[in-house]
Amino acid sequence: MVASESVLHRYEQVATHVRHLIESGTYSSQEKLPSVRNLSTQLQVSITTVLEAYRMLEDQGLVEARPQSGYYVNDRTPLPPRLAGQTLVEDPVDVGMGEFLMRFLRDFQRRDLVQFGSACPNPAFLPTARLARGMGKVAKEIGLQGNQYDIPPGCETLRVQIARRALQSGCVVAPEEVMLTLGCQEALTLCLLATCKAGDAVVVESPTFYGHLQAIEMLGLKAVEIPSDPVHGLSLAALRQSLEDVPVRAVLLCTNFSNPTGASLSDDDKQELLEILGRHELPLIEDDIFGDLSHAPHRPHAARAFDRHDRVLLCSSFSKTLAPGYRVGWVLAGPRYMPRLHQLKLFSNLGSPILPALAISEFLSNGAFEHHLRQCKRHYARQVCQMAEAVARNFPAGTLVTRPKGGFVIWVELPVGCDTRTLYPKAIELGLTFGPGPIFSARGRFRNCLRLCAPYWDASTEPMLVRLGDLLRARCSR
Amino acid sequence: MVASESVLHRYEQVATHVRHLIESGTYSSQEKLPSVRNLSTQLQVSITTVLEAYRMLEDQGLVEARPQSGYYVNDRTPLPPRLAGQTLVEDPVDVGMGEFLMRFLRDFQRRDLVQFGSACPNPAFLPTARLARGMGKVAKEIGLQGNQYDIPPGCETLRVQIARRALQSGCVVAPEEVMLTLGCQEALTLCLLATCKAGDAVVVESPTFYGHLQAIEMLGLKAVEIPSDPVHGLSLAALRQSLEDVPVRAVLLCTNFSNPTGASLSDDDKQELLEILGRHELPLIEDDIFGDLSHAPHRPHAARAFDRHDRVLLCSSFSKTLAPGYRVGWVLAGPRYMPRLHQLKLFSNLGSPILPALAISEFLSNGAFEHHLRQCKRHYARQVCQMAEAVARNFPAGTLVTRPKGGFVIWVELPVGCDTRTLYPKAIELGLTFGPGPIFSARGRFRNCLRLCAPYWDASTEPMLVRLGDLLRARCSR
Repeated sequence: MVASESVLHRYEQVATHVRHLIESGTYSSQEKLPSVRNLSTQLQVSITTVLEAYRMLEDQGLVEARPQSGYYVNDRTPLPPRLAGQTLVEDPVDVGMGEFLMRFLRDFQRRDLVQFGSACPNPAFLPTARLARGMGKVAKEIGLQGNQYDIPPGCETLRVQIARRALQSGCVVAPEEVMLTLGCQEALTLCLLATCKAGDAVVVESPTFYGHLQAIEMLGLKAVEIPSDPVHGLSLAALRQSLEDVPVRAVLLCTNFSNPTGASLSDDDKQELLEILGRHELPLIEDDIFGDLSHAPHRPHAARAFDRHDRVLLCSSFSKTLAPGYRVGWVLAGPRYMPRLHQLKLFSNLGSPILPALAISEFLSNGAFEHHLRQCKRHYARQVCQMAEAVARNFPAGTLVTRPKGGFVIWVELPVGCDTRTLYPKAIELGLTFGPGPIFSARGRFRNCLRLCAPYWDASTEPMLVRLGDLLRARCSR
Repeated sequence: MVASESVLHRYEQVATHVRHLIESGTYSSQEKLPSVRNLSTQLQVSITTVLEAYRMLEDQGLVEARPQSGYYVNDRTPLPPRLAGQTLVEDPVDVGMGEFLMRFLRDFQRRDLVQFGSACPNPAFLPTARLARGMGKVAKEIGLQGNQYDIPPGCETLRVQIARRALQSGCVVAPEEVMLTLGCQEALTLCLLATCKAGDAVVVESPTFYGHLQAIEMLGLKAVEIPSDPVHGLSLAALRQSLEDVPVRAVLLCTNFSNPTGASLSDDDKQELLEILGRHELPLIEDDIFGDLSHAPHRPHAARAFDRHDRVLLCSSFSKTLAPGYRVGWVLAGPRYMPRLHQLKLFSNLGSPILPALAISEFLSNGAFEHHLRQCKRHYARQVCQMAEAVARNFPAGTLVTRPKGGFVIWVELPVGCDTRTLYPKAIELGLTFGPGPIFSARGRFRNCLRLCAPYWDASTEPMLVRLGDLLRARCSR
């Protein structure tokens, strides 16, 4: 043992050893550390010494003890941003970001850029070849029927599978309470059409997914932004106050692993949300697209699980978990809205193609989905931690970053004065994209924020984040 | 020879023989009769005698001589209906036929009914197995890319094929002037969104395809019905007058083989239509879905072929010719509207699935489409004649029926007093559907009209039309 260590207690030496394992990256955030017994054997110290070492590291905030499980590396990323934005009641506002947004969305498709901006799942995690083989098999079996209109509600075998899986989110639905759509985005659009008329106002969280704002814009609706906490989600207090003063027609919300913040409403908050909506007789359009990508073994409840009055229209899809290119999404809704949804889907495009739906149904019915999902979740959980940590290491001092418990997007708040809109073209020059904060707000808020997506993580990822960090530090300090 | 024939001239005997061939159904409307030489050999009479016989039948309106081709059976169906409906200028009207229409559309899917109501193509005429094999092949070749978002304008290889085929309709377009959609219906919906705001009025022909009315209803638009002649199409005089008095935002029209009448605008009328629209700075949303199904060897021009001011948004799809179940349609449009159309497609559903588009592209690129199309056209041309003749034979006296030169729908005008809405449930009891006239009008006109579709024709078809005819004769005479 070297001199400096000789003055340390035995347990302090063990703690130093573990700290080194963490700081060198051998164990990352949220990963399980060696068990007490293993460490005792490896280092030839007593169980009590290892326990004391872990207790010390716990006190220092470096590790976390989980009952019946062991010790885990704590997040070392900065605290997430807090509730931001206007908490005063605001008037509904027209949404008009079409051209502004299109520019980013076009960049998000470029293969020559590192796509921190785009929330597409990692193609390497998708069972693409297997789905394609399934589609070929089904097409052969079904024959002529594979080339017929599949009118709403759409392919029954898939609706049965979706109804079964809905149980995991606490939703008990019959297959006839499922309607297939062209991805989650069409589901959201049809739900807005089913609940609102042009000129009506819709509550959205702030920041919110730009796709929500696009649908609102397209249909000539207005947005009322309600601040959303990056951990706890929509401020129910602000919602309550706003609904007293502003006439709105619907609430549109990611209740779990919201895009872009990753925030989730607790079960209690979901129930309270429904009570508030009940008082105003308002429908909730629930965007649950990331719900299945919980980093924990079990997914959280959907707000629809607490819905006793057929007030929630739940929208989701397989685009984040299985097949973005197959464009298979759905709405769960009861008799209050379902007949109108059938009409609207029929009026919009008659129905979706049936073969992609059948290919996914085939994949679900042979039980492959749950195994596949577990793997995806593990990858994304790790990558989200890696990215949050890299942001903490490389972005300007004072940067805050979310630690989502599901999905693969993180929300970064830079020091005030950073302007992600003007920084964006510089990032493109560096060969990468990000989601500039203002595309997540109808009022162009969050100029000092950005969304980063972590579908990928390899040796080239952190160097690109280092580049971005250098840019931010250089430009934000001016 | 029997006595009655002995008093006839030789040529009259030949004419009687041919007349019998026609009346017994051995040769149907528009079919080529035996050549003069063949008949002369068969009946052992001189060429001159046969020529005299044919001349007599021509005078009687039973056959038609076509230069360099021979003699053909003339249509024996009654004259088509004439321009109907209100020719006075009318105010725009809200469209609210959702539930009323849904009932018929649901019946149109029932496999236990003979579907005279539904304009689905005959599955036996579609290259379904070949398309499915093509999709499997392409999915394997393209790998991961087959499971990616295909954002607007969508799959380039297919857009190149569509741009090439557009030349046949007189349209010279670049691939970037093509945007893929989920069938023609989505193309129409997006074009309405691109040109109108809620509350705006849109000109439609009367009668018009119910899908046009559905899209107008869904988007909160109003309809202005302009009478359409079952042969010559939209009354330009009525349009001209209406545009002077009523503010409208767009014109939505089938210019070729309109659904339900089968009418086409002449090239001159198309040019005049564009002049009128130019005077009012109005866009034309041109529904060309049946354009490729001309019964003649060459298809007619699209109105877009005459468009010098980027005013026409042409909508079509492969749903009638190739693959209703693949949901592949498109818009042809220039720089005036295309950027907005890209936005709207993206906002609605991000994009269509790419594999169906690639499967169709594969089918087109190996040259199989033109051969396939010739066969379809031949079938439908014959079946439309057979159906029109069966209507003439079996429906109440005074019935008028169209003789479309493309597509496979015919429009039937029953004697005044027949009410196709109230007759409809009786038809369902008989085991068949039809399209009741009022679903083709925002104002519920055409109660004594109905649409029949002729995708099928076999031994069981005419007996079903006989049943329908019996019902009509029994109920309309009351």
